[in-house]
Amino acid sequence: MLKKSVTIKEIAKEAQVSIATVSMILNNKDKNISESTRNKVLKIAKEKNYIPNTMARSLITKQTGIIGLVIPDITNPFFPEIARGVEDKASEERYSIIICNTDDNLQKEDQYIQILTEKMVDGIVITHSADRYQEDSIRILDGCRVPIVLIDRDYSIPNVIGKVLVDNFKASYEAVNYLLNKGYRKIAYITGSLNTKTARDRLEGYKEALLTRGISYDERYIKVGEYKIQWGIDATKKLVSEDVFFDAIFCGNDLIAIGSMKALKKFRLKVPQDIGIMGFDDIYMASVIEPALTTMKQPNYEMGYYAAELLIEGIKKESLSINEKNTKKIILDSKLIVRESS
Amino acid sequence: MLKKSVTIKEIAKEAQVSIATVSMILNNKDKNISESTRNKVLKIAKEKNYIPNTMARSLITKQTGIIGLVIPDITNPFFPEIARGVEDKASEERYSIIICNTDDNLQKEDQYIQILTEKMVDGIVITHSADRYQEDSIRILDGCRVPIVLIDRDYSIPNVIGKVLVDNFKASYEAVNYLLNKGYRKIAYITGSLNTKTARDRLEGYKEALLTRGISYDERYIKVGEYKIQWGIDATKKLVSEDVFFDAIFCGNDLIAIGSMKALKKFRLKVPQDIGIMGFDDIYMASVIEPALTTMKQPNYEMGYYAAELLIEGIKKESLSINEKNTKKIILDSKLIVRESS
Repeated sequence: MLKKSVTIKEIAKEAQVSIATVSMILNNKDKNISESTRNKVLKIAKEKNYIPNTMARSLITKQTGIIGLVIPDITNPFFPEIARGVEDKASEERYSIIICNTDDNLQKEDQYIQILTEKMVDGIVITHSADRYQEDSIRILDGCRVPIVLIDRDYSIPNVIGKVLVDNFKASYEAVNYLLNKGYRKIAYITGSLNTKTARDRLEGYKEALLTRGISYDERYIKVGEYKIQWGIDATKKLVSEDVFFDAIFCGNDLIAIGSMKALKKFRLKVPQDIGIMGFDDIYMASVIEPALTTMKQPNYEMGYYAAELLIEGIKKESLSINEKNTKKIILDSKLIVRESS
Repeated sequence: MLKKSVTIKEIAKEAQVSIATVSMILNNKDKNISESTRNKVLKIAKEKNYIPNTMARSLITKQTGIIGLVIPDITNPFFPEIARGVEDKASEERYSIIICNTDDNLQKEDQYIQILTEKMVDGIVITHSADRYQEDSIRILDGCRVPIVLIDRDYSIPNVIGKVLVDNFKASYEAVNYLLNKGYRKIAYITGSLNTKTARDRLEGYKEALLTRGISYDERYIKVGEYKIQWGIDATKKLVSEDVFFDAIFCGNDLIAIGSMKALKKFRLKVPQDIGIMGFDDIYMASVIEPALTTMKQPNYEMGYYAAELLIEGIKKESLSINEKNTKKIILDSKLIVRESS
């Protein structure tokens, strides 16, 4: 076998000491052992590439030092920073991350939770599948025995010890308020699916900001589709072709905003002079495109980092009793990033 | 403890059968056991959320079903697709992925290899730190006892059973040849650091394509810096301010190309009419910016997928003898994506 490393027995033989002595030295319980023996054993262990058998230790401690990270898709520009935040905090605490992509598919989510549980992970950080909001059936995640921390999407699942969310109502309110302060009055809203609480909270924030200024909510200004560039293009074409006057568009994410700006260019409408555009997320592209996109920055890296922190805190508390009441909740703010598009 | 699940003993008690019977049923060695007993035991195991103790099994089989994936940085747009490819193939084969970000730092790489080895991963897929090309010291990776598959960056490390690389010479040759076919003759080349073989191979491909047309290589056309947008801006400003006539720029990656186009716009030089631009990678942004970027698409997802395939093949061959001679090498081609910038 490739990964055979030297055993304690072999080290003992070469150092001409007992197995117990080697074991004590390698486990830092060697205060009664002479310095020279200690050095000899450690030297051999190092030369022969001794690897402490974490698996054997795990069987006794019931801890593997591994955390599962379950997300929809690492190739969606929203998730790499979350993953990086989780990994950075975990690695500070000597935990490793097993990463799983569910494609927002509940069957895949189930399979992964099953595998993670079999691999005896110490806990799970998850942005669960958006389909949960539509389907009622009980999933493996619901019976999961390890502590769970939710990121970005809020849902009632047993064993949740922490949630790291963004105040989407507030973020959306601030975004629309910024547009109003800039003098825009007829603000359309192009969003992705309203199945998630995230999306519904943002719609409420939009309504509230208008209401505060005495502007009544008009459904004709709302276009509901997908969080994709193409939807930004299609929805903007619809808005232009329908007989609705608008002077700004608030977009559910930056991809929609990019699509929207592409479509406006075709109609020779200038951003921000004719139409103001506001995005959401602040993905890398937002600062690169022209005009650069004004947007609400999501604290993705921080969400990942805090989620790992909450989870590891929870794992370390041995006698943890879990219920909704003592679930820790961290609500992060989005940040307005003013660029050129509005 | 949170993750305590039902034990075989508890199932046996509830089903009123022996522990041996439960064990045989749960391990699929139950051909002499009656159907009704079998169903009763499985029903209880399911209801009580029985989890097979993979750790205990791992101690015997010496296999954990976990693969390490070591990359510089998941937030660099180059890596999420590689990671996704690795994960998709691994999950098809019921392997899980531990992900590690080294930031191209050899000390971090060492730490992660150590942790992965302690966690007894079955193998490692790695895009090793670029600093390896500059530093001679022996690293933990060199003494690593598990099979390794290299992605994208080629280097001589023991225990490498596979390499998945791109033919960078050929890709670069084809890119420059495309520009020549379009009528461009004075082609500048803005690249990142030439420390990696990848970058040097591309420079050679550039030279060779020019040579084939009888165009002599001129060092003044080569700008060496970083793979970043800002370097694309700075290098293009240099090219314009220096007294060197050029009609196209081949860029070492798409970020450089995006920066270059930004700078040209400031000089009121039109792409592709005045200056043709060619990128490398085909990141998501390449199709979104205007003009859309002509580029060489790297087969990132495929690289990850094949790397996981090679590694798992290797892990499954128990009596593997590893030496450079039987290292499997997969060389993938890049693909010319023609858009608007040249």
